[in-house]
Amino acid sequence: MDAATVMARADALGAVSEEPGVLMRSYGSAAMARANELVGGWMRDAGMEVWRDAVGNLIGRYDGSGPGTFLLGSHLDTVRDAGRYDGPLGVLIAVAAVERLHAREERLPFAVEIVGFADEEGLRFGTTYLGSSVFAGCFEPRLLDVRDADGTSLADAVRDFGGDPDRLADGGRGGDDVLGYGEVHIEQGPVLERRGLPVGVVSAIAGQSRIAVALRGEAGHAGTVPMAGRRDALCAAAELVLAVERTAAEEPGMVGTVGRLVASPGAGNVIPGAVELSIDLRHRDDDARRRALAALRAEAERLGAARGVEVGWEVRQECGAVPADPALSDRFAAAVEAVGVPVERLPSGAGHDAAAVAAVAPVAMLFVRCVGGVSHSPAEAVEEPDVGVALDVLERFLRGVDTGAGAGARAEGVRA
Amino acid sequence: MDAATVMARADALGAVSEEPGVLMRSYGSAAMARANELVGGWMRDAGMEVWRDAVGNLIGRYDGSGPGTFLLGSHLDTVRDAGRYDGPLGVLIAVAAVERLHAREERLPFAVEIVGFADEEGLRFGTTYLGSSVFAGCFEPRLLDVRDADGTSLADAVRDFGGDPDRLADGGRGGDDVLGYGEVHIEQGPVLERRGLPVGVVSAIAGQSRIAVALRGEAGHAGTVPMAGRRDALCAAAELVLAVERTAAEEPGMVGTVGRLVASPGAGNVIPGAVELSIDLRHRDDDARRRALAALRAEAERLGAARGVEVGWEVRQECGAVPADPALSDRFAAAVEAVGVPVERLPSGAGHDAAAVAAVAPVAMLFVRCVGGVSHSPAEAVEEPDVGVALDVLERFLRGVDTGAGAGARAEGVRA
Repeated sequence: MDAATVMARADALGAVSEEPGVLMRSYGSAAMARANELVGGWMRDAGMEVWRDAVGNLIGRYDGSGPGTFLLGSHLDTVRDAGRYDGPLGVLIAVAAVERLHAREERLPFAVEIVGFADEEGLRFGTTYLGSSVFAGCFEPRLLDVRDADGTSLADAVRDFGGDPDRLADGGRGGDDVLGYGEVHIEQGPVLERRGLPVGVVSAIAGQSRIAVALRGEAGHAGTVPMAGRRDALCAAAELVLAVERTAAEEPGMVGTVGRLVASPGAGNVIPGAVELSIDLRHRDDDARRRALAALRAEAERLGAARGVEVGWEVRQECGAVPADPALSDRFAAAVEAVGVPVERLPSGAGHDAAAVAAVAPVAMLFVRCVGGVSHSPAEAVEEPDVGVALDVLERFLRGVDTGAGAGARAEGVRA
Repeated sequence: MDAATVMARADALGAVSEEPGVLMRSYGSAAMARANELVGGWMRDAGMEVWRDAVGNLIGRYDGSGPGTFLLGSHLDTVRDAGRYDGPLGVLIAVAAVERLHAREERLPFAVEIVGFADEEGLRFGTTYLGSSVFAGCFEPRLLDVRDADGTSLADAVRDFGGDPDRLADGGRGGDDVLGYGEVHIEQGPVLERRGLPVGVVSAIAGQSRIAVALRGEAGHAGTVPMAGRRDALCAAAELVLAVERTAAEEPGMVGTVGRLVASPGAGNVIPGAVELSIDLRHRDDDARRRALAALRAEAERLGAARGVEVGWEVRQECGAVPADPALSDRFAAAVEAVGVPVERLPSGAGHDAAAVAAVAPVAMLFVRCVGGVSHSPAEAVEEPDVGVALDVLERFLRGVDTGAGAGARAEGVRA
């Protein structure tokens, strides 16, 4: 079992799409069902028992010689016009690692369960982490009424996908046997590439704030309103865009982005009377993020007041940072070192299923270098040798997992 | 004949629309035909002979005792969701001034011709000044092939409107008898309101440059690409927006506006890889405008280079300033003074039919104060007493028009 097989499987899975010509697998689609069948088959080839849970997460279990269970996983759904690796790569490398054990008829002192989460991207219902939140027992039942673009409710979509909407909030996979969760994922950023490293150990999943800002000034004729009397909402927005950039640049490890900006009315000869824009701010330290956000809000109020532009500020999303479990991360680091690669620890600016699973298990993540840091694009690419390194690291990591008191705080509690 | 009648007629005309609930009269529409009928009727009531030219401009003539002709006019078409005064007010005040002469059975030493231009806004075909350019003999025949949103060519639209597309470039109204052109128009800006004045004399119609800027950086994941390595096209755009504002503010009388800005891909969690924006720059002095534009382009190149963002710069439109004729403007000023109003001279940042007519006649304009400087909106408003002042000023202006050597350079040539 080698990296070439993983690459070939990623190609095969990348051809399973609900839309011709572009890769897209949203929750509950026929393409997702076909992906589950395909990956389920590979799991069975690796000697695993395979089933699906109430939301349709695909789960494969490889029994061990002891009572504990170590979880591996990532997601099998994609964004629209996606690449082949964001999500599936972590599942395929996990399956390949188990297949190596199976080929040697080897049992670890604990079982390995691999989860292919059914919805991480939230493309169809806007429900990020849907699969892993059900798995972790944190599903919010109010989401059952959310409807997709065609008017189908999530409850109906779960039923159509062969799941059971009434059981989504039943508590998930949690259990005394769980030792921890490990996730392999492409970095989706340029750090490993810049450092010349195939893999890196994730220190934390950054917390993030998403703000919707509404600026209301006054529209007017671009030719007749003197500069002195203007209340140009786009000029105010421009100052805020630069304030976001400056604020993030001043705090090491912080990223801040205005990704969406809509100026109204949007005609070349009319002063923009209103602007809506988004702020996305992320950092591994929640306090640093909150301080920066407060400073930005004060700056927005100040620059708005100076221009006679009203500032609306709505926090749309606020997620705390999720630190990786130190003991599990050290095991990933030891495995990286063992295959001869310098250990780079880096935070993840993107969200991952591990953030949801952290509610029920200590978690750790391994990043794989991706070409140009590109993701959410057909141009997404990983190099086969890097996949080989990640596979070797995951195999060593599994051998190093402690089944006893050292496996992390929660596992300790379990054994106590 | 008083201001109340003008206001009532503006209301009646404001109800003539091609779309229910909003005011909209585009070139060639049934609403434009109805507007021509309505205004033509008022012209006849004022003792005028009425006809339409090859493009459908409505013309009314009130004969005089001498051979010269003085032209008055403005446009009868509107933008979408328009106000009632931008354009029509100038025609209605002109008709009212003639009606006063007619009521007294008085003839001036020259004829007065009033033109209701059929298309100034260019709403349907993007053909600004279509009516006045035909009138002034500057029509560009290539425009006949331009199509509207429904695929109808301008040539067909002219025919459908009862005009003759083959005669649009025949030379227009030019003639040895023309003494000059006067246009009354709402200011569409806040200057007169700030000064507390009902009317003002236009010194020049500002020249303008319209630029389409395309900024191309690199899209990326908002969570994973560190600030240091970004090529954020929206941050570059923000700097440029502020540079446009600063550049215009530094030059007295200049206005500069970024009215349109589109950031792509436009998702909150994606660094904008591309931005398209418009720059609209106006000044009464063409050299000052060209200098500012060159400085802005250099600044765009500099800030783009500093960020690794490519800058595309396309001049979409470039119109030189049109100075008002000094002699005619002095006559407007004398008339303003005679009715007891301090004389304010101000440039027009907006374009007007007078700019096109200037090709065949000395032109002058009188601005009427509008509430809040608002135009191109149903909220557009003028006060009846201000309309009364404008009517009195126009009447006195007509009496003051010189039929001889003093009427402007061109008229001098004519008499020579």
